[in-house]
Amino acid sequence: MKKYKRNQRIGALMKIFAEKPNYVFSYNYFSEIFNAAKSTISEDITIVKELVSELECGRIDTISGSSGGAVFIPYVSIKEKTEILSELCEVFSQKNRIVAGGFIYTTDLFNNPNVVSNIAKIIASEFNHIDIDYIITAETKGIPVAIMTAQKLNVPVAVIRRNNKVTEGATVSINYVSGSSKNIQTMSLSKRSLKQNSKVLIVDDFMKGGGTAKGMSDMMNEFNAEVVGTAVVIETLAPEIKLIDNYMSLLVLKNMDEKEGIIEIEPNMKLLK
Amino acid sequence: MKKYKRNQRIGALMKIFAEKPNYVFSYNYFSEIFNAAKSTISEDITIVKELVSELECGRIDTISGSSGGAVFIPYVSIKEKTEILSELCEVFSQKNRIVAGGFIYTTDLFNNPNVVSNIAKIIASEFNHIDIDYIITAETKGIPVAIMTAQKLNVPVAVIRRNNKVTEGATVSINYVSGSSKNIQTMSLSKRSLKQNSKVLIVDDFMKGGGTAKGMSDMMNEFNAEVVGTAVVIETLAPEIKLIDNYMSLLVLKNMDEKEGIIEIEPNMKLLK
Repeated sequence: MKKYKRNQRIGALMKIFAEKPNYVFSYNYFSEIFNAAKSTISEDITIVKELVSELECGRIDTISGSSGGAVFIPYVSIKEKTEILSELCEVFSQKNRIVAGGFIYTTDLFNNPNVVSNIAKIIASEFNHIDIDYIITAETKGIPVAIMTAQKLNVPVAVIRRNNKVTEGATVSINYVSGSSKNIQTMSLSKRSLKQNSKVLIVDDFMKGGGTAKGMSDMMNEFNAEVVGTAVVIETLAPEIKLIDNYMSLLVLKNMDEKEGIIEIEPNMKLLK
Repeated sequence: MKKYKRNQRIGALMKIFAEKPNYVFSYNYFSEIFNAAKSTISEDITIVKELVSELECGRIDTISGSSGGAVFIPYVSIKEKTEILSELCEVFSQKNRIVAGGFIYTTDLFNNPNVVSNIAKIIASEFNHIDIDYIITAETKGIPVAIMTAQKLNVPVAVIRRNNKVTEGATVSINYVSGSSKNIQTMSLSKRSLKQNSKVLIVDDFMKGGGTAKGMSDMMNEFNAEVVGTAVVIETLAPEIKLIDNYMSLLVLKNMDEKEGIIEIEPNMKLLK
């Protein structure tokens, strides 16, 4: 069986932790894959713990006892958050993004894994300290952000759909009023999607009036689920009063001049404190 | 400025490579973040290269010259592939997955980041050697697999939608015939989604007759894009002749007995050679 040197084990451990954040790996598991004594693994973890702290990318928690293990909890430093948000503002406000009707074309960004991964990093970092069972989103554009955030928090996603699908089994449907356009719309979620009494984080790409987020929150009532947080990538400055109260946005759309092709987007300053 | 020890740099390098596969990092970049000479970084990369090869999780390619750099190209070993596929067969064939109408409920699995990440690992591993500009999928269930595969291949995704959306700008729409139900359906894709003459990999959750995959392929013709591969998570054994020829599946649904609640799924053996 293979034997690994210390620096190889450190490297492999960092890869394993990076690929599965918020997942508790047992010392036994590491002991087996590295063919090394638990005491050796324990020393390795101490080095990794210090490294993660020096890199300012999160922390390693160790769980003692016979079923002891270690888990990587990623956090984003204020410096990195500032850089990411400023990059996001730049790409989301590119001049040619305004399409007919005064909408902003953002589909390419929400389907770009590098952009989405940075967004997910920040959302996961903000909600790492809260107990969450599921991430909830509504199709379609928010799904990549939801799944990548879920990967970082190590929880599953439930996707609320606009229509019933035959493959979903029994579903719960509700009507909701879009916050800005006042249209009545339907959303449905498979009854199998969520266990009763779950704690959920709602994630969506965009919030104007907050109607969709309110609808998702109402849907959660039908599942006796508790909404422990709501995160949106972009909120519009107006209307100032949204249909829901507690939410966190990454970016604020302050103004858009369709004629001049100017989009003004700023980071949510609350995240940089 | 911080200085890092060799085992710390090895650890940090493995984290950086694991989080951004198929991305070329310059030696200058590493030199700056570690505050170390390029010759030191070069030695580190040699160690990391050997480690990745020993772990059988891919390879590190180095690009020489003034703009030199290093890139991690992940591969899945036959052993790991066998394990992943057998786990997937197990979860996809759980007895309680059959819903009214003889459909299989898979939504929870396609929204579970651990399951999706394993699926994406295999697809990316199979297509790592091919030049790909975009991953194409059709909403909704395949989106998580598409974005996670895209993350591993470091390319963007384009999502074909069932309906036009006002936020998509000008779109191309086509009609297609569902392979199994023979219904005529519409799909549309924003003109901004793809550059002309791109090479694309089609990714979808399920294939029965192959109608959706054929539709996506026809849509690609409208964008002068070349389909260099098609990957589906599950294909059904029947009908044996699909509407498209070249595709790769991870799992094969051999049989389903609605009355007895039995689902027979096997790994695609071609992947294990």
